Amino acid sequence: MWKTKLLKKGTDSMMFRVAIRASALRAAGVSRNLSSSSSSPLRSAAASSSFNQRRNYSLWGLLAASSLIGSISYYQYKTWLQNKVECGALDEDIRIRLKGEVTDSSPMRLRMEQFVKSLQKKIVSELEAVDGKKFQRDAWERAEGGDGISYVLQEGNVFEKAGVLVSIVYGELPSAAVQQMKSRHEDLDPENGPFPFFASGISIVLHPHNPMAPTIHLNYRYFEIGNEDGTPRIWWFGGGSDLTPAYLFDEDATHFHRVLKDACDKHDPNYYPKFKTWCDKYFYLKHRQEARGIGGIFFDDQNDRSPEKLFNFVKDCGNAFLPSYIPIVKRRKDMPFTKEEKLWQQLRRGRYVEFNLVWDRGTKFGLQTPGSRIESILVSLPLTATWMYNHSPLANSREKQLIEVLKNPKDWI
Amino acid sequence: MWKTKLLKKGTDSMMFRVAIRASALRAAGVSRNLSSSSSSPLRSAAASSSFNQRRNYSLWGLLAASSLIGSISYYQYKTWLQNKVECGALDEDIRIRLKGEVTDSSPMRLRMEQFVKSLQKKIVSELEAVDGKKFQRDAWERAEGGDGISYVLQEGNVFEKAGVLVSIVYGELPSAAVQQMKSRHEDLDPENGPFPFFASGISIVLHPHNPMAPTIHLNYRYFEIGNEDGTPRIWWFGGGSDLTPAYLFDEDATHFHRVLKDACDKHDPNYYPKFKTWCDKYFYLKHRQEARGIGGIFFDDQNDRSPEKLFNFVKDCGNAFLPSYIPIVKRRKDMPFTKEEKLWQQLRRGRYVEFNLVWDRGTKFGLQTPGSRIESILVSLPLTATWMYNHSPLANSREKQLIEVLKNPKDWI
Repeated sequence: MWKTKLLKKGTDSMMFRVAIRASALRAAGVSRNLSSSSSSPLRSAAASSSFNQRRNYSLWGLLAASSLIGSISYYQYKTWLQNKVECGALDEDIRIRLKGEVTDSSPMRLRMEQFVKSLQKKIVSELEAVDGKKFQRDAWERAEGGDGISYVLQEGNVFEKAGVLVSIVYGELPSAAVQQMKSRHEDLDPENGPFPFFASGISIVLHPHNPMAPTIHLNYRYFEIGNEDGTPRIWWFGGGSDLTPAYLFDEDATHFHRVLKDACDKHDPNYYPKFKTWCDKYFYLKHRQEARGIGGIFFDDQNDRSPEKLFNFVKDCGNAFLPSYIPIVKRRKDMPFTKEEKLWQQLRRGRYVEFNLVWDRGTKFGLQTPGSRIESILVSLPLTATWMYNHSPLANSREKQLIEVLKNPKDWI
Repeated sequence: MWKTKLLKKGTDSMMFRVAIRASALRAAGVSRNLSSSSSSPLRSAAASSSFNQRRNYSLWGLLAASSLIGSISYYQYKTWLQNKVECGALDEDIRIRLKGEVTDSSPMRLRMEQFVKSLQKKIVSELEAVDGKKFQRDAWERAEGGDGISYVLQEGNVFEKAGVLVSIVYGELPSAAVQQMKSRHEDLDPENGPFPFFASGISIVLHPHNPMAPTIHLNYRYFEIGNEDGTPRIWWFGGGSDLTPAYLFDEDATHFHRVLKDACDKHDPNYYPKFKTWCDKYFYLKHRQEARGIGGIFFDDQNDRSPEKLFNFVKDCGNAFLPSYIPIVKRRKDMPFTKEEKLWQQLRRGRYVEFNLVWDRGTKFGLQTPGSRIESILVSLPLTATWMYNHSPLANSREKQLIEVLKNPKDWI
């Protein structure tokens, strides 16, 4: 299925390209409320990148960098897709997509894509019910292969800024990336490349107005390098979800971790403790010597059991998002707060910006990759943030209590 | 003068250490209004750093990273200094300092230090006159060698946030840094090291409240690696100043560049065009494909003529700060503005944060160097900033005109 000619740039027989365009066509057909955005598909970043960072940086960043490489209007999009599909070769993947027949026996790439898109719809719908305002929807297409849908809500009733993004990226894996992967995958000989790859993911960042309601982040992703017959040669899952409060409510932290632990425990009793620790370690501002928030779970490179098992695990994690967060935001969104508490939230927002711009591997890679769609990468930044010189919370204050937990991550369960 | 034993950590005979402490003691003696800050001198960053970046990153960053490695209260400071001075060996440098006898024939390191400290006083005094509020003064000391004075004004009448900082850093140059320097300085054999170094600099960032008044940045620095006899083996000057308006006034841009050009032209007719271009190139947000502001001058590694000539040039540049900026801020600080114009300023502040956290070499190096005093490094960030998804100024608006100039830097003279 995954033909060698798939790798030749510009050929319309590129299976994934056609397949995913067809899928996007379907999506476009059922969603006419696409917002009208500006530019035509831009040349992508990922292919021209030197990929001279660690493998994880590269592949993870690829999703970030390629998020909304360019967005196009609904009419441009539909016309363009139809032209492409008409002259393209329909093969197994595209037939599956056009018929809406992604089943449990379909390739994992199609199943993961279907899952993240369906999860996105469910989450957006629930968040709109909580906020009372509608998200803005942007559909986009990546010139070298890929597409996605972004939902953004700004200055809502509950959310200051909220983004729910799905990205599908595929194409030819740059040889520098293959070289870096070699150390972990000995069967991957750069001499035998180039290799086709496929990556898909969902990313969420929600910043509520009320300083008592925490910011939440989620990301789940699947990566695959293909064999010529379309089967995966190398693959893995990664992702996680973490909570960043300005004011700490133990019951919220415990609830959040409990829901994630339950999702983990269904699959492996070692998952939660392992991925909780990994999360505390990853979302850490070294220059402040404090964690970004009160953690959650984080993992990468998961391929130590069957794809089926890991997909089920990732689905349960993704589906845990709404139950992990909605009860919290509902009980905090209308709480009274003072001007000083709002200022503290703004200072914490400043730390969020510092983490994302200085330490987050995906963001850093995206920003340094020419051609990335910056607005999608930086949708994770809060609407507003503050930096005060030498600000320090008073001893025994609620603000100080938060800092102590950020400096010494707790076990919440 | 620069004795080999100077390089032994922990010896009280370290000339520079004692010398500069004595100087700081004098400074402390005449300024009893030191603010009371928190921590005792922290272990520094610079010495433990791997220095695995480009030479310029390292050395420049060293100043940034070591800015206010730790600040101490006046009483802690004075007691600590007295103890140190009493048991230290007084040599030529310290005698010069204690007597206040830095003359034109003193070592350049002492002359540059004296210049930046005197410039700092003059600038702080003039800015206080413009603002009507007083700066907060912090004195600090670097455990491995160095000290400095920071003046910060927050929520003033004119300035939202303003920092005027002087840093003096010295010690032993890490061998990795020497290795990297070797390509440019063949006589520097890492085998013959370690080498003593000395660096001093002044840094200014002013963010006014009024969106019509531009942000300004300045930095001038001197770096020296010493021979055993105390003479400089390798040395250079670097620095510059640039303007970042939210609303462009051609007369301001022309005035600013004119004052800098006049300072440059007194020394070399090639300086201004060369350093103006260097500035446009350095203060550039690659991910936004736009300059941070309307530029100014920027240079590094200047050692192509006598230290005397370059010091005179740097002095003229430093002294150009007040005439380059004060007339601009005076005519803009009370201009009327709308809510939308304030928002635009906040969005531009967001870009300022992006530049400093993502691209500025000194800031990046400082944040990644354990033990740096973060508050000093990040004093350059604005008090408040905003990020809106997909914000784009209207065609032919003043906001759009600014963006066009940022995308295509102009010649202002």
